[in-house]
Amino acid sequence: MNGKREDYMKAMTSAHIEEIMSIVKTGRVLTDESDRFSYSFDGSFGTYLPDAVIQTKSVEELAALVKFANRERIPVYPRGQSTCLSGGPLPVKGGMVFDLSVMNDLLEISEEDLVAIVSPGVLTADIHKAAEKKGLLYPPDPNSSHVSTIGGNMAENSGGPRGLKYGVTKDYVIGLELITPEGDIIKTGGRTVKNVTGYDLTKLIVGSEGTLGIITKAVLRLLPKPPASETVMAVFDSLIDAGSAISKILSAGILPAKMELMDQASIVAVENYEPLGLPVDAAAIILLELDGHPAALKDEVKQAADLCKSVGARDIRIPQNVAEKAEVWKARKLVSPAIVRIKPTKISEDATVPRSKIPQMCARLQQIRDKYNVHLVVFGHAGDGNLHPNIICDKSDKEEMQRVEQAVAEIFTAAVELGGTLSGEHGIGTMKAPFMEMELGAIGLDMMKRIKEVWDPNNIMNPGKIFPEPGQKLELS
Amino acid sequence: MNGKREDYMKAMTSAHIEEIMSIVKTGRVLTDESDRFSYSFDGSFGTYLPDAVIQTKSVEELAALVKFANRERIPVYPRGQSTCLSGGPLPVKGGMVFDLSVMNDLLEISEEDLVAIVSPGVLTADIHKAAEKKGLLYPPDPNSSHVSTIGGNMAENSGGPRGLKYGVTKDYVIGLELITPEGDIIKTGGRTVKNVTGYDLTKLIVGSEGTLGIITKAVLRLLPKPPASETVMAVFDSLIDAGSAISKILSAGILPAKMELMDQASIVAVENYEPLGLPVDAAAIILLELDGHPAALKDEVKQAADLCKSVGARDIRIPQNVAEKAEVWKARKLVSPAIVRIKPTKISEDATVPRSKIPQMCARLQQIRDKYNVHLVVFGHAGDGNLHPNIICDKSDKEEMQRVEQAVAEIFTAAVELGGTLSGEHGIGTMKAPFMEMELGAIGLDMMKRIKEVWDPNNIMNPGKIFPEPGQKLELS
Repeated sequence: MNGKREDYMKAMTSAHIEEIMSIVKTGRVLTDESDRFSYSFDGSFGTYLPDAVIQTKSVEELAALVKFANRERIPVYPRGQSTCLSGGPLPVKGGMVFDLSVMNDLLEISEEDLVAIVSPGVLTADIHKAAEKKGLLYPPDPNSSHVSTIGGNMAENSGGPRGLKYGVTKDYVIGLELITPEGDIIKTGGRTVKNVTGYDLTKLIVGSEGTLGIITKAVLRLLPKPPASETVMAVFDSLIDAGSAISKILSAGILPAKMELMDQASIVAVENYEPLGLPVDAAAIILLELDGHPAALKDEVKQAADLCKSVGARDIRIPQNVAEKAEVWKARKLVSPAIVRIKPTKISEDATVPRSKIPQMCARLQQIRDKYNVHLVVFGHAGDGNLHPNIICDKSDKEEMQRVEQAVAEIFTAAVELGGTLSGEHGIGTMKAPFMEMELGAIGLDMMKRIKEVWDPNNIMNPGKIFPEPGQKLELS
Repeated sequence: MNGKREDYMKAMTSAHIEEIMSIVKTGRVLTDESDRFSYSFDGSFGTYLPDAVIQTKSVEELAALVKFANRERIPVYPRGQSTCLSGGPLPVKGGMVFDLSVMNDLLEISEEDLVAIVSPGVLTADIHKAAEKKGLLYPPDPNSSHVSTIGGNMAENSGGPRGLKYGVTKDYVIGLELITPEGDIIKTGGRTVKNVTGYDLTKLIVGSEGTLGIITKAVLRLLPKPPASETVMAVFDSLIDAGSAISKILSAGILPAKMELMDQASIVAVENYEPLGLPVDAAAIILLELDGHPAALKDEVKQAADLCKSVGARDIRIPQNVAEKAEVWKARKLVSPAIVRIKPTKISEDATVPRSKIPQMCARLQQIRDKYNVHLVVFGHAGDGNLHPNIICDKSDKEEMQRVEQAVAEIFTAAVELGGTLSGEHGIGTMKAPFMEMELGAIGLDMMKRIKEVWDPNNIMNPGKIFPEPGQKLELS
């Protein structure tokens, strides 16, 4: 598993390139170093140059390339827009990158079946728009949706703020067309929400980070769009009180579409980046979006505001129109760009804990910040326990990066000790692979590895991801 | 795969029974034929006598038994209350049945984490009650929930009327404790809704019909209970109009909790069984349950009623109190017991089609009924395309059963041809196994089989289910 570079062909030969060219009749094969460089990184850490990049809209050509790659033991990496935060599309063992962002022709909405049929290269935001035009909703909304592809979202099982009420990408994928690691084209699931015909390969593949095959088409379940939504911002002088407000609201029978937390460091960062009138002296704010029938919303907004006040919110803001609402949500959207102003490198984690453990996790994060003297910012999807502890650092500072390494390892340990998980929505990729056994145990991890090995006997499909190599450790410095 | 009887130990020896007795220290081992007979059938077709039945609450004892069974090649069958309609718990190759209905001690609700932690033998209805006491909802509601176990529901990925709005069992299982086919105890998932740490073994196991291991504990996601619900019954003179009403309502942005269809044959059967004042001259009725905020419901009920009228409903009934609502839903609950009054044998199918294909599927079912002259009753979860065509027959009548066999095969073909699936919520089991390749293709089926083989190399875990044996055909006569 995850064999070394020498388990694969040493380097691609000109004969290989010729064979690739002969297979790719309708697309492009990029081999210039300058072209290949654009495919050597993603939204995470590290750069790895592929030997060739393939752009084609033809499923048959891709399948033929995979058959060839399997025969010649050439690694293959499916790739969308590479906004991935865990290294999913990085060509860590060399070989071919398949640029699936070009496969973006199909975006069909069936109002009758309440499904969308999509190509993997379609931007997720375009699915949102197409569904909304017909009064429908595709709920998963990773913050990157305006630039990320649905194929990438499926590979990593992306979440987003609406995960609390609506679940994640996997909950909406009901059918797939897939190229297997041996180059066969299969279909899984279909257009029906209920389907128990054999093993659920659809949900196995979604979230498998491109290690079990290449998704070339998908059927997504849609919902009727809720007729209205309201936003509430609550300001707290204590992070613990903010945590209590979250619990109170959920146990009062209110299920907000979004329930986001920003700590003081993220509030200050955003306000410095773009003044929005946020309370920079507050310990935390929570942002709620409630959706549904207008009459129901009126009640729920009042109830949520009262509950926040009852646990110590010092201020409640309820934006009154679309522009005011957009302004509030802009604050949350700006956290990521704002914090990288502080230092150039952002290590973005998404360790997730049961929601009752959020106050304890916040305390552990503060200890870790102080112990390793790192710049730690905490924000994220508090309602579902999916925090985003981000460490802002400078990758050229070796000493600092060693402290960051230790801090990151301790964040993972804290999440697992609190009954949580290494990754809520970003994926394991390369960086978190060394921690898999800590969460899953040796046998749990082995049961996953068995599936990988029997589906991809030559380990050509996105090697180096999810499964740790012997002795692999987290390395940022 | 699914080797013949001779691939396993010929018959269990007294030495085997002694070893089993030495492992099971806290439970019971049943070997008397009269005891074993009670474990030879389920809610489907056929009887198969196991060699021994084990009842123990100890996970460690069960794991030790599986290790022993794996060493000695003795088949193992996990079993709940055996309400299964597809043969899931049938001991078709002899060996040991594990009666997990005795493992029913754990039913813990965490309001803060919005989860339930349960043993596999807990009745699903008891989970409903425990959640409701705390203002929460466990949505999956198979009609058998008062007698079926959550373990069986997970094995078969049971659905139920609320599938339309809330999804099926799989959508609510987020963590498992599992005994693997080699007798190891592993954990999958956890208490967080978001979790992308490696492959999603939880959703692979739920719905795998007990072929990949034995579930010994589960974490279920709960929702806040909707504050109110309303019921609407609409009466139609044409099945096609009823189908149109279903489409209209869904595309108007209303997502009912339940949307059930009863055809004339099922209306008449229920009315003969217990007079409820149903319109026996109607071609079809649809039953809606809407849930949510009372103010929203008031609007939606009116809108749904108007939409039904606009496509030709001749009568709308809106029950005004709890007792009247219960009476309406009783009609739907009574379909199953009512139709077996007609003839003793019920072949209950759950072929599912994309919801836009419901009118076409209804037409195909009528053709099949006439062609083979069988007593076919159609009812079910129309909102999600999950119809329940039931054939009422007499298994002692060989000639009739041959016609039934052909009719069933043609129902499966019709569903797959219309872009649907063999089974929406009952599972494949033994009866539908011969049709798997028709839906999945040879390679699609092989990719499933690879997982089974690598997880269960000796094929001891519920053999004879899901995967067809060479040359296997549907046999009812």
